[in-house]
Amino acid sequence: MTNNKDYRIEKDSLGEVKIPKNVLWGPQTQRSRNNFKIGGPMPFEMIRALLEVKKAAAIVNKKNHEITNEKADLIVKTVDQLLAGDYADAFPLVVYQTGSGTQTNMNVNEVIVHLAASINPHITLLVNDDVNHSQSSNDVFPTAMAMAAYDAVKKLLTVLSQFEKSLTAKAAEFRQVVKIGRTHLQDATPITFGQEISGWVSQVHHDLSYLEDGKRTLLELPIGATAVGTGLNTVTGFDTAMVEQLSVQKSVDYQLAANKFQALAAHSGLNFVHGILKTLAADLIKIGNDIRFLASGPRAGYGEINIPANEPGSSIMPGKVNPTQIEALTMVCARVFGNDTTISFAASQGNFEMNVYKPLIISSFLESANLLTQVIDSVDRHLIGGITVNRDRMSASVDDSLMTVTALSPHIGYEKSAKIAQKALHEKTSLQEAAVGSGYVTQEEFDNWVDPLAMTNIDR
Amino acid sequence: MTNNKDYRIEKDSLGEVKIPKNVLWGPQTQRSRNNFKIGGPMPFEMIRALLEVKKAAAIVNKKNHEITNEKADLIVKTVDQLLAGDYADAFPLVVYQTGSGTQTNMNVNEVIVHLAASINPHITLLVNDDVNHSQSSNDVFPTAMAMAAYDAVKKLLTVLSQFEKSLTAKAAEFRQVVKIGRTHLQDATPITFGQEISGWVSQVHHDLSYLEDGKRTLLELPIGATAVGTGLNTVTGFDTAMVEQLSVQKSVDYQLAANKFQALAAHSGLNFVHGILKTLAADLIKIGNDIRFLASGPRAGYGEINIPANEPGSSIMPGKVNPTQIEALTMVCARVFGNDTTISFAASQGNFEMNVYKPLIISSFLESANLLTQVIDSVDRHLIGGITVNRDRMSASVDDSLMTVTALSPHIGYEKSAKIAQKALHEKTSLQEAAVGSGYVTQEEFDNWVDPLAMTNIDR
Amino acid sequence: MTNNKDYRIEKDSLGEVKIPKNVLWGPQTQRSRNNFKIGGPMPFEMIRALLEVKKAAAIVNKKNHEITNEKADLIVKTVDQLLAGDYADAFPLVVYQTGSGTQTNMNVNEVIVHLAASINPHITLLVNDDVNHSQSSNDVFPTAMAMAAYDAVKKLLTVLSQFEKSLTAKAAEFRQVVKIGRTHLQDATPITFGQEISGWVSQVHHDLSYLEDGKRTLLELPIGATAVGTGLNTVTGFDTAMVEQLSVQKSVDYQLAANKFQALAAHSGLNFVHGILKTLAADLIKIGNDIRFLASGPRAGYGEINIPANEPGSSIMPGKVNPTQIEALTMVCARVFGNDTTISFAASQGNFEMNVYKPLIISSFLESANLLTQVIDSVDRHLIGGITVNRDRMSASVDDSLMTVTALSPHIGYEKSAKIAQKALHEKTSLQEAAVGSGYVTQEEFDNWVDPLAMTNIDR
Amino acid sequence: MTNNKDYRIEKDSLGEVKIPKNVLWGPQTQRSRNNFKIGGPMPFEMIRALLEVKKAAAIVNKKNHEITNEKADLIVKTVDQLLAGDYADAFPLVVYQTGSGTQTNMNVNEVIVHLAASINPHITLLVNDDVNHSQSSNDVFPTAMAMAAYDAVKKLLTVLSQFEKSLTAKAAEFRQVVKIGRTHLQDATPITFGQEISGWVSQVHHDLSYLEDGKRTLLELPIGATAVGTGLNTVTGFDTAMVEQLSVQKSVDYQLAANKFQALAAHSGLNFVHGILKTLAADLIKIGNDIRFLASGPRAGYGEINIPANEPGSSIMPGKVNPTQIEALTMVCARVFGNDTTISFAASQGNFEMNVYKPLIISSFLESANLLTQVIDSVDRHLIGGITVNRDRMSASVDDSLMTVTALSPHIGYEKSAKIAQKALHEKTSLQEAAVGSGYVTQEEFDNWVDPLAMTNIDR
Repeated sequence: MTNNKDYRIEKDSLGEVKIPKNVLWGPQTQRSRNNFKIGGPMPFEMIRALLEVKKAAAIVNKKNHEITNEKADLIVKTVDQLLAGDYADAFPLVVYQTGSGTQTNMNVNEVIVHLAASINPHITLLVNDDVNHSQSSNDVFPTAMAMAAYDAVKKLLTVLSQFEKSLTAKAAEFRQVVKIGRTHLQDATPITFGQEISGWVSQVHHDLSYLEDGKRTLLELPIGATAVGTGLNTVTGFDTAMVEQLSVQKSVDYQLAANKFQALAAHSGLNFVHGILKTLAADLIKIGNDIRFLASGPRAGYGEINIPANEPGSSIMPGKVNPTQIEALTMVCARVFGNDTTISFAASQGNFEMNVYKPLIISSFLESANLLTQVIDSVDRHLIGGITVNRDRMSASVDDSLMTVTALSPHIGYEKSAKIAQKALHEKTSLQEAAVGSGYVTQEEFDNWVDPLAMTNIDR
Repeated sequence: MTNNKDYRIEKDSLGEVKIPKNVLWGPQTQRSRNNFKIGGPMPFEMIRALLEVKKAAAIVNKKNHEITNEKADLIVKTVDQLLAGDYADAFPLVVYQTGSGTQTNMNVNEVIVHLAASINPHITLLVNDDVNHSQSSNDVFPTAMAMAAYDAVKKLLTVLSQFEKSLTAKAAEFRQVVKIGRTHLQDATPITFGQEISGWVSQVHHDLSYLEDGKRTLLELPIGATAVGTGLNTVTGFDTAMVEQLSVQKSVDYQLAANKFQALAAHSGLNFVHGILKTLAADLIKIGNDIRFLASGPRAGYGEINIPANEPGSSIMPGKVNPTQIEALTMVCARVFGNDTTISFAASQGNFEMNVYKPLIISSFLESANLLTQVIDSVDRHLIGGITVNRDRMSASVDDSLMTVTALSPHIGYEKSAKIAQKALHEKTSLQEAAVGSGYVTQEEFDNWVDPLAMTNIDR
Repeated sequence: MTNNKDYRIEKDSLGEVKIPKNVLWGPQTQRSRNNFKIGGPMPFEMIRALLEVKKAAAIVNKKNHEITNEKADLIVKTVDQLLAGDYADAFPLVVYQTGSGTQTNMNVNEVIVHLAASINPHITLLVNDDVNHSQSSNDVFPTAMAMAAYDAVKKLLTVLSQFEKSLTAKAAEFRQVVKIGRTHLQDATPITFGQEISGWVSQVHHDLSYLEDGKRTLLELPIGATAVGTGLNTVTGFDTAMVEQLSVQKSVDYQLAANKFQALAAHSGLNFVHGILKTLAADLIKIGNDIRFLASGPRAGYGEINIPANEPGSSIMPGKVNPTQIEALTMVCARVFGNDTTISFAASQGNFEMNVYKPLIISSFLESANLLTQVIDSVDRHLIGGITVNRDRMSASVDDSLMTVTALSPHIGYEKSAKIAQKALHEKTSLQEAAVGSGYVTQEEFDNWVDPLAMTNIDR
Repeated sequence: MTNNKDYRIEKDSLGEVKIPKNVLWGPQTQRSRNNFKIGGPMPFEMIRALLEVKKAAAIVNKKNHEITNEKADLIVKTVDQLLAGDYADAFPLVVYQTGSGTQTNMNVNEVIVHLAASINPHITLLVNDDVNHSQSSNDVFPTAMAMAAYDAVKKLLTVLSQFEKSLTAKAAEFRQVVKIGRTHLQDATPITFGQEISGWVSQVHHDLSYLEDGKRTLLELPIGATAVGTGLNTVTGFDTAMVEQLSVQKSVDYQLAANKFQALAAHSGLNFVHGILKTLAADLIKIGNDIRFLASGPRAGYGEINIPANEPGSSIMPGKVNPTQIEALTMVCARVFGNDTTISFAASQGNFEMNVYKPLIISSFLESANLLTQVIDSVDRHLIGGITVNRDRMSASVDDSLMTVTALSPHIGYEKSAKIAQKALHEKTSLQEAAVGSGYVTQEEFDNWVDPLAMTNIDR
């Protein structure tokens, strides 16, 4: 049971609100808590980005003499304390709230005011006129979205580059290890395992380069456009000053949004970049499936490679190593596919001067980027380096294959070669036995002509 | 070069339109052709369903003395001729037109009028006042959508039942054929191939029952609701009379839409039933992947089953049988997934009294249903019956497996069993060798206790 | 800095593991924490369902004399304590782990063993041989998935029924309130607002009935099938006894899975039922968009209805009431669309005897069901009841409309009616002025013939 | 009834095949026709691209003395005839065939051989050894995919640029036309219609630039990699020579695929570029919805703009202009969303050296690109230029708005301004009446201070 002592009363334009006594938030946050008991919290990256915006706005407003020096300095000090400390509990609002993120913007404003009062009780900050000065949720929230997304993409790029390096090292390690190639899941001509891995490297490399280029669109900040994109009630130059200040604060080369009406009402950039994340997800599924099938067995599967045993696969079966890292990887990728559907839909539903799916778009985007970052790092640490090959099994399946008959064709012609392959198939022998048994080639010729490593065309 | 002789001129409320001389359509169709050069034609099933509606309306309007007997009879005669003959060229309009399908409804009306004029030049039918009497595109088109979708689902159910039967027969054929089970792609305890197939049968069976139940929602027809759902300008009872007449004509037990406002403005039923199609698609991908991996090889894959060689897989490699039917199957399923995204989006975008994504919803629905019907029939005819097993390979991999050690556990305990499995793994021997070599069990005991078929728990 | 005093050491088959001293979990949970630092926690509903399974298994194993009475009783007591108390911290594992959910199953087993030791230190429970007796993750986890999903759907059905009732009450309230109908967003013939709402009711009602029927497939439990579906190492009848015991425990009429191979390797049921959730999501988007557009304004929008002002929309603009509940609603629906893509993909990717996307499938399913439950409840409480209409605006737009000319047609013919509408359009007058001014009808005739409420065909 | 005279018999490695007498294809095409009666034809762009590859290969093989001059010349001549003429009937195979597109590659090879025989009966071309020399379906088909996709994207870019120009012209035309801004669908501060359109322009411009950059990845051709990526059985330099020859033939600056294993087994590039198409689709939905809502009415909607009446909207209601071009546009966009789901799934499903969803990926990609091209061109031609504004309505709603009160705030303070807005709302007057009536401002002050155009901050 709570009683009056547990609450304080604050007012906003709709009237009085009961707020838990010791919390840092105010009436608008409390109303949102009362009205939106739906799902989980707004990603904290958004709170951090909004705090950076508040700090930059205080500094620019100070320069412009829009708010007093002492108020500006107090806001900066308060934000620095919030960024440095552990204040997650002060930001309880959920993703599923107003579609402009207004309530989270007000949550941030209110917390700054309340914390500032404890830092310096002699200065009274106002939520709207001071902390939110020259801003509205409509420009502040998408600005924070772009900043948070850019940071998340940069983290992803770091682990993805590391992942590419790890795979590249593996491609070098197995450069000359011959194995059977497979198309339509059917045995085909030989390749080296290094070549196969080089295909994975190239998938990752393509996605890296798409993301490296594509992330630039996230640098566009619509700050200064206030409620509808016209910048009403900001002083001239506020927008560019904010971009400069934020660039300094975050050491990122932000730009002003090319068109502010677009930046409030559409989310082309986030949609486009998430399209790259889903491309990456598709590529990772392919790589993951290859790894787990090549490691399938230990006896009744492909069994060409071994992966680290990170946890007991089965209490009684020592050889059973489940590809659990890959399972986490492909589950993440399936989630990214879902987020892409969500973001495409949400990005399409803007009307006039605003898109009201902002909290969903950014939370889905950040979920994808962060899950990918975490799982790629995990797979890199717990699996890639530990891959070893079963050379015996690889070379046995090459020797066993009938597809190497292709190498005889230039010497004895297509027709005789086909007959040898047929013979081997029907008599269930090796190609070599069938070839020598056919009388068309000698053992020596066979050994000279059928050189699986040569068939892979790698430079030696 | 065309000249005036190639065209005739007709008028509608916007003015004159040049129409190719010998075609059966009129000005509204021609305007649509001029304005919408986008993509492919409206599915012909929709034309057929609309023709049935026109026929039923003529009969009901005749009974209600809303149009004259001779006009009604002429409409019926004309529709019967159109349904019996090959008139596809008379319906050239595309899917990407007006979102209510109005232009296709008018195309049907116009063609009836023109063809009727050649059947009986003494009676002049009017497009709106006679052929479209008591109707509007807004009720006629969704009525035809439900009818076409229901028919397509019934065809799918027929081939799906046949597919279930074929798989059931295969499950019986391989009822006692023991093979290795696989979880996480890793060797596990034995099952029979019949059991494995029974899982496929059950997947299909579940989907069949969902579809059998779910299709009932497609029986709801919003006929008689005219432009906005109120039925303005129809005589009382027109709606129920139409449902009865259409039920007789098509031998289907149609019902009147539970709520006509919903039926014009939302497409819950088609969305729901397509959700079943995507469930079926997911299940077919699982079955298809199992088949192609079990058939992978011929030597360096799982190689447990053989599938028919329907076409040359490779000109030089007789054993290379590509699982092409499965490839077509899984491509269809991926298309169905896409159509589900399309239909979910489209179904969500109604406003007020109308959803204007109707042609897209029905064409995507029919594409899914028809592709599934065709490909399941194809896989059934060209693949399922021809599946044979490589018993040697199956039993070798069971013998080779270490997982059968589980059967020793109740006799010699968990610890000794684990030691035997470890020994076999490290010494690369069979479990039997390791077991007898360990001294914990005799050859006779091993043979008695390790009975793979018994481990599958099938009734014998 | 932590030191040795903060940890205890436990062993599993891979060796020693350092575990924080006071936690209830054991080595397998700890390994998973070390190896899978990816995303958020497994939904607690899964933990609860697994605990119920453990309790039921103890009871059945006791009856079958498979474990001792005192061990069984201790397990039951421990589970009851876990279900009653607040033990969320004891289950720290994430969704993105092994795809069979093994690690969460082991987490549950380990926590029971550790807590039991504090309840009765004289009995030593074993993780595998006692708590997990006759079970494997492969059957226990999908059993818990079905149970958790069923419960979530039942909660959703409760709020959805309430939502339907609230809308039905509103339809009755506005039964005779005439407004303009709109098709293609263009003015059309009149309807009543009650009719418009009845369409929303019918959308909800259709989805309710799909879900009511469809949820039955979630009653199928694959318990007793152990690792691959054959039920190896369970005593005969264990499976049916478990279904009975769980039915008693949870007062739900569970059934044994129709085919256990399917139930481990495919997730047709969850995929199908989630297809219903996405159908519901599409319908809710339509309803939500209608509400927010009808409430658009206050002056420059449709402005036909008012919605409650739950929070300040703008500090200076008293009339600005943002449709925030609807914004939360449509964001949830977009998320459900994404989850449907995720689940369809995941459900398609089973191989042989197992699908390894289980944690993702159930967490996505539960997210959709729970978010829908919460947001529908929220919209119901905070919005629906508070909808009021602007009768003046509604009737003004009906009077202003040209579409009511349709009512003159039966009296003065199509051609003269069209001329009147043309006249009103070009002279920018009301239809009435144009009609009387045309000389075709008298004021009295107009008043008699043009009766918007009559045009809606509602029973009066 | 057909009899023997209607067929000819040809042989391939599986035996005899009956082929319709006068067709240009051979046995492998015929087998595919018999085995794959599923869906519609392979896009003809793929046939054209494959023909270009055959021509280039003949030229390069001639230079390399791999085939005789006269054979090479005959192939070139034949291909030129096929490219120039109307031979669509010779390529009847469907999308849902083998997943490598082998059957379509063989169809092309067979048609060249048959047509060549009629051009010069003295030279006998062989399907594999001559026309397909140094090639396999596995490299030829993805090469053609990249070429066809690149061409389709270029066409799309052309119409998209034109669309941007048309919108830019409209933005200029309505540069100073003030209207109400809308956020959350609620009235907000004024903007000009030119500003609103500039947001649309910027959406299109962003997507244009993504596509312009992104299309480069489609220039990578995997030609010369033959069956598994190793280039086995091609002479050194064949790959680069082919890229040069194709670049000359098509005047496109192709490059050799960065990694050929990736290029056969993954489709990162097509997946990525299609992600841009779905971004464009989302943006077009936003633009389309804005247009149709702004044009809603004619009386009971927003009614701010007029769009061309391209076809009769209603036979009796002259003012009813349905936004049919927009309806086609948004249906296309919903289709593109579906294709994105399909392509993401398909691109993820490669195994080892091959992805067997190639025909589906390219047909879905081309469908998206072509539909977008057609519908954007259609909307541009039939709608954009014809947009006019209802200045009276726009300015009336600005005058009527309470949001312009914001402009008083700097002069009389926040509190008094809010009181004026409240007064206007409750007394249902204009803001001006309430302001002057309040005594806080004079009529003259109001006129000076409340200048909607000034509030939009456009340069004057």
